[in-house]
Amino acid sequence: MAVYSKKITLHTKERIEFVKITDLVREAVKESGVQDGIVLVNSMHVTASVFINDNDGGLIKDFKDWLEKLAPKKFNYHHHSTGEDNGYAHLWRTIIGREVVVSVQNFELELGTWEEIFYGEFDGQRNKKVLIKVIGE
Amino acid sequence: MAVYSKKITLHTKERIEFVKITDLVREAVKESGVQDGIVLVNSMHVTASVFINDNDGGLIKDFKDWLEKLAPKKFNYHHHSTGEDNGYAHLWRTIIGREVVVSVQNFELELGTWEEIFYGEFDGQRNKKVLIKVIGE
Amino acid sequence: MAVYSKKITLHTKERIEFVKITDLVREAVKESGVQDGIVLVNSMHVTASVFINDNDGGLIKDFKDWLEKLAPKKFNYHHHSTGEDNGYAHLWRTIIGREVVVSVQNFELELGTWEEIFYGEFDGQRNKKVLIKVIGE
Repeated sequence: MAVYSKKITLHTKERIEFVKITDLVREAVKESGVQDGIVLVNSMHVTASVFINDNDGGLIKDFKDWLEKLAPKKFNYHHHSTGEDNGYAHLWRTIIGREVVVSVQNFELELGTWEEIFYGEFDGQRNKKVLIKVIGE
Repeated sequence: MAVYSKKITLHTKERIEFVKITDLVREAVKESGVQDGIVLVNSMHVTASVFINDNDGGLIKDFKDWLEKLAPKKFNYHHHSTGEDNGYAHLWRTIIGREVVVSVQNFELELGTWEEIFYGEFDGQRNKKVLIKVIGE
Repeated sequence: MAVYSKKITLHTKERIEFVKITDLVREAVKESGVQDGIVLVNSMHVTASVFINDNDGGLIKDFKDWLEKLAPKKFNYHHHSTGEDNGYAHLWRTIIGREVVVSVQNFELELGTWEEIFYGEFDGQRNKKVLIKVIGE
């Protein structure tokens, strides 16, 4: 049995930004030497997501518009009484999700044709970490 | 350590349809020979979900009504500029989720009394794949 | 390879309540003897969630207000035709999620600074179970 851990640091230019990280995860899977197993990929921050969807710029715009409708950035969140201004980011990350678990087969990520792994940053412009954990044989 | 992979193909009659797949996953767990471990079940498509909820026809109707309210089918999504007409399906799958991870104990799925595994199809009427990956001993 | 299972029972005073369970999961990880691997934590009930977010009372209030907006408690859900009155709880749990998978490193949960594991109860005041499954070496 083999277990392999890796952390990658992301620092987005924009406060809200979607970054395709499929290749970074693919690289970690190669490094792990795991032939057959699973890989967990999760944000280590509560205002960011890791998720899988289509790599289409229009869809990314749709996500931003839609999240703003479901939980607007400018709103008097209770969370802001601590001095924070990112209440929306905690809710956005809840909708989009914290983590994905993906099959590893023949030393490769086993994804569907249109599946791409994304990091969704909702309160960025600072260093944030994504954890990659491969487990298998 | 044992690792077992299986893909199942689903082809729904309706564009939007919920299919109970608990027994298909149970079968794969049996085939795996894994006594104690976990099983990952995920959609390999970005317009479909795998999730766990109650097997009640009324609730399935509620899901459809509710998803339509949160992200209407008829809407001018940016994603449609590529010629697609399934923007809503990408958002629905985000709400419902891509995957579940379930405990395997004594060669069986370890589910709560009302937990049933569903495939949520949001843009069907064609072949779609679900990946089942069992890992344990 | 080591696999360890544990079930914990939660019984909330309120029908809707959020309970921090990070320490209960930490304890199970210690008991497992797993040094390096992953832990799955899931609700065994379809009206409750396990999720990771910030431990802030204001944010908990925000979650309750926001879920009520997305899926009101008082509403004529199809699910209620079975005699149930918890349609909202099935939808809330869908938004918040059923499970989390977390890395285990050096016999410890590997969480980000602000990551805390919560049990979200949406139809409580009775015994409910959370399943913890540790797998690794």
